[in-house]
This record gives sequence, structure tokens and C-alpha cells, in this order.
Amino acid sequence: MPRRATIRDLAHRSGVSIATVSRVLNGHANVAAGTRDRVLHAAGQLGWHGGRATDGDVVFVRCPYVLSDYFGLIVSSVVETAELHGMSVMMNAGKGAAGRSPLPALPDRPGVRGAVLILPPEPTEDLVMLRDRRFPFVVVDPRTAPPRDVVAISSAHFAGARSLMAHLVGLGHRRVGIIGGPREWSVNDGRLAGYVTPLIELGLLPPSELLRFVTEPNEAQGHAAACDLLDLPDPPTALVGFNDKIAVGILRAAAERGLRVPADLSVAGFDDIDVSRATHPMLTTVRQPLAELGRMAVTMLLRMIGGHELDALHVELATELVVRDSTAPPPSM
Amino acid sequence: MPRRATIRDLAHRSGVSIATVSRVLNGHANVAAGTRDRVLHAAGQLGWHGGRATDGDVVFVRCPYVLSDYFGLIVSSVVETAELHGMSVMMNAGKGAAGRSPLPALPDRPGVRGAVLILPPEPTEDLVMLRDRRFPFVVVDPRTAPPRDVVAISSAHFAGARSLMAHLVGLGHRRVGIIGGPREWSVNDGRLAGYVTPLIELGLLPPSELLRFVTEPNEAQGHAAACDLLDLPDPPTALVGFNDKIAVGILRAAAERGLRVPADLSVAGFDDIDVSRATHPMLTTVRQPLAELGRMAVTMLLRMIGGHELDALHVELATELVVRDSTAPPPSM
Repeated sequence: MPRRATIRDLAHRSGVSIATVSRVLNGHANVAAGTRDRVLHAAGQLGWHGGRATDGDVVFVRCPYVLSDYFGLIVSSVVETAELHGMSVMMNAGKGAAGRSPLPALPDRPGVRGAVLILPPEPTEDLVMLRDRRFPFVVVDPRTAPPRDVVAISSAHFAGARSLMAHLVGLGHRRVGIIGGPREWSVNDGRLAGYVTPLIELGLLPPSELLRFVTEPNEAQGHAAACDLLDLPDPPTALVGFNDKIAVGILRAAAERGLRVPADLSVAGFDDIDVSRATHPMLTTVRQPLAELGRMAVTMLLRMIGGHELDALHVELATELVVRDSTAPPPSM
Repeated sequence: MPRRATIRDLAHRSGVSIATVSRVLNGHANVAAGTRDRVLHAAGQLGWHGGRATDGDVVFVRCPYVLSDYFGLIVSSVVETAELHGMSVMMNAGKGAAGRSPLPALPDRPGVRGAVLILPPEPTEDLVMLRDRRFPFVVVDPRTAPPRDVVAISSAHFAGARSLMAHLVGLGHRRVGIIGGPREWSVNDGRLAGYVTPLIELGLLPPSELLRFVTEPNEAQGHAAACDLLDLPDPPTALVGFNDKIAVGILRAAAERGLRVPADLSVAGFDDIDVSRATHPMLTTVRQPLAELGRMAVTMLLRMIGGHELDALHVELATELVVRDSTAPPPSM
């Protein structure tokens, strides 16, 4: 199967600039007739098929999870943005979708011009297969580090985690327990690296006894891991959770032990979803730009469908530290 | 446009029972050849087209809201159930979708066999138009009371609200503030009726000064309404919110005033989404069967697509009172 022609190919073949090709394809008037003909001729030779997505074209969106806060916010944004561009969205979602991969059949589905895959459970080989078939797709929140030429969008996990830990270290915390997400998610790597960086800068290495991982990042598992850490002979003075739901579990473990947050224990989450403002005290956390992840995914997908070269294939969107009431100096200070 | 033939029509035309028609259409062996021929002949005359949805058929799902907890849980379940039945889901979602109604064009969209409309903002006339065009669709959470012959699924709001208020009245509360949802949502009627019933049974009528409505059922508006009610000269001893998010706003208003929940003030929500377990104390609430709403919607839609007569056009699924730690006897008791 031939590689899909790009605007760059058209410019090369017709001997004009990319800007000129773009003007021709967008129907601008200020192009000499001869130039226009050359570009359109090249377009014909290269099998260029219009570029832009058109009304009725379908984007396939796969998010094989329950669409609660977090995933639901990304999906809403993807769907809304695609529709704004006149495309329809074919939706694949729910826990049950995890076991049945629709990826191999995607390139052959009539009308489906591209896909947005959110935290896809498929192995990298399946993504490589799609890429090799020149099927346009964008991965949001890749589970494992994607190949260099697969388009992926995620939050700046490293920077977000680092700013959170810098905040705790700045308050005076030195023994910080970390409850990570599922070990096989690559996002853990970035966050862990971010968490330990401010500690390393102080010449500290967090002891492995203060590190836990859950298999599913929910409140119950956060609670269990927090109980474990708080019952250590020398318990941490602060606990950070992989996400806000885990932090809710931490708060519960603290309350059960009569620990006041933040006076006796500082607690922080990640994501800034609704629950982070429902707790008392409200959670210090790291805001992920969930709606923007969705918008960016569709924007990049439309550019791929349009045959544009993408310069940045792996995009990281900025996160933001949100300091609320669950963090304070450690009790000994 | 002729009315879509039903199994009942087939039975009438071929002079056999509905059960027999069903056996023929489902390919069962225990049907006499002559009977089978009569049924199939009638099916041909009536333009019966196979009945069941088939692989690749599309269900259009409209949920013009951000898919946070609540709506996201219904949508996940709709998508998952449709896919289990071999259908694809065309998704329309996000706040931006509210302004552009896709309903008028739905019957003409190729491949689209039916629709699930979640809390549709469209006026009743639009639903009647779809019904008159014999387009199969199911409404989940109708915003206003749907016409009798439009299929609608909702939770038992009246029963849920009544059980919640009975719980508060049983604890001794007599002055209960109610923060309702958007006035134009018919679900308010059912809930309000449910809330006041246990009071009326005691010969009490809740004074209108204890009733508030929000325009959007979120935490901020819940907080504002709660401040208003708690600052009354004779404040209520309990507050019930239209949903759990409003109840979170109530908790915040109480905390700001130094009111202990539940010792000084009882608080309750509705829905039982994640935030109801993230608060301290955890919220007493009414559980809505959100996943089951989605499953039931698809099941009924498939039956409509299959040409079955539906006996119950308006289905109410049971709710459940969940008593947690935010409700207790009033302080004077």
C-alpha cells in the first residue's frame, strides 16, 4: 500500500512552496493559473484525495473504560471537537470493550477516516500495524511509550509530579509515601521520575518501603495502600496518590487512624477531577488539561487526515499544580 | 410513510399466534412447513425486513452534556450494550452539542437504525416528529413528560425521594430545606412530590421559604442555595440536594458556618456517584441505576428495531436509599 501523499509531497512534485500548495488546495484566488494547474496535476498523480475531512466522515473513538470523570471528560471533548469539524464519531467504550480489539479491522471500515485511541490496551505492535497501513490515528495517554512516528498526546506527567513534590519538599517533608498506578502504565515512569527529582536534589532517595503500586487506580486500592504505609513503624509525613481517587482513599485511611489532614499528614492527588473538591479538606493536586487533550487529539488527527506533515509527533500538554488545603508543613516542624 | 410492521401485524396477517411467528422468524425447527410459508408470505407482503439489528447497524446516541460521572456512566453502558449486540454507536456529546439538534436529519442518515436520546433538550414536538416518521428511538431521563407512545426510561424519582425524606422524618426532622434542580426538568416534579409526601403524611407542608431551585445542578449553585437557606432566621435542620454535587456544595456551606454534619445539620444527595463517597462524612443519598438505565435503553431499542410491540412504553427502574454518615437526628432531639 503506497504511503499517503502529504502536502510536502505535493509541493515537491509540483516545484512550488508548501504555502502555495496550501493556497491552491484551500481555493485562494491569489495563485497564478499555471501554478494552480501544476499543483492540481501533481495532486492527481499522487492520488491526493481532497485532504480535509468532509461532512459525514467518521472518526472512530476507542476508550475501553467506564466514562466516569477523567475518561468521560476527554471523550466529551473529542466528540464535541470532531462534530465541530463536521465529522461523525463512532464510539467504542465501556469496560467490556477492553477485551475485543477493533484495531485490526479499522482501516477497512467504510467511511472511517481516522481514530482517536484513549489509553489503548493494545500492545505496541497493533499500533505499528495501523501505522504501517497508513491509517490516521492519534493516541491519547499512551499506556506504554509509543514508537517515535506514532502520534501521541499526553499531559506533562513528569513536570506535574515534580512541581507537586517540590511543593511538599518546600513545606519541609522528607518522608513522602508514593502510591503509584498500575505498574505497566508508562505514565508511572514519568510521574515517579517527577516525584523523586526534588528529593534527589536534596540528596535524598525515597526508600522503596515508601513506594506502593495499585493494579487499578481507585479509592479502595488507594485506601489499602495508604493503610499499609501509615502503619509502618516510621510512617511518612505526606502521601501522594497516583490520582485523586487514590487520594480519597488515603484521606479515609487517615481519618480511620485519627490523623488530621494536613496537621498530622499531608495528602495530594493528581488529575483535579470533581472529587478533589468534594473532600474535606479539599485536595492539593495536579490539574491535567483533560478537555484540551481531546481537542488537541482531534486537531492533530484532522491534520493527518488532511495529509499534513506533523512536526511534533509526541505532544505533552502542560499540567498545573493546584494547592488547596490538604498539604501543610509536617507535624515536627 | 407506512407504519413499520410489528410481530403482531405478522401474526394477524398470517393467522397464527405471536409465539409461532416468533419461532418462524428465529428459525426454530418445530414449525409446520405450511405455517412457516404463511408467515413468510405475510412478512413479504408487509415489507418485514428481517427484524433484528445486524452487525454494522448503527445506533445514534445523543447526550449533549459533558460526560462526567452521571452522564458518562449511562453512556458507557449504552455503548457497551449496543456493541455486545453487534451494533456500532454514532456518538453525539459535549455541551456544544446542545445547540445543534441532529434529530430532524436522523431518519435519513444511512445505516442509522435507531437512537438513544439522553435527557434530550429538544421540545416534545421534535420527539413526536421522530415518532411519526416511525424512527425507532428511546429517551433516557426525559426532560419533560414524554407523549404516551414515546418510549422512555428513567429512575423511580418519586419513590427514591420519598424514601429519603421518610428516612429524615423518621430521624425527627421537620424543617427540611430542599434544593431542587432546573425548574424546567420534569424530574423535579417527581422528586418534589416524593420529598413532600412523608411530610404531608405528618400533616406538615414544607414552607416555600425552604425551597430553592438551581439552574444548573453543580456544586457552586448548591453552595449558594445552601448559604441562603442556612442563613434564614429559623434555618432548616436538614438539607436535601437535587444531586450529590449539590450536596457537596451544602457540606461546604455548613463547614463555613461551623456547622457539624450530621450533629448540627443533616445533608443528603441523589445519584450515588463517586463524590458521594469522597466527602467527609460520606453522603446519605439515593442510588440511581445508571448502568442499568443504559442497558435497558438499548434492550428496548433493539426490540423496537426488531418490530416487537412494547408493552411498557414508560419504564421506571428502582432507586435505592443509601444511608451513610451525613444524616442523624436533629440537634434538638
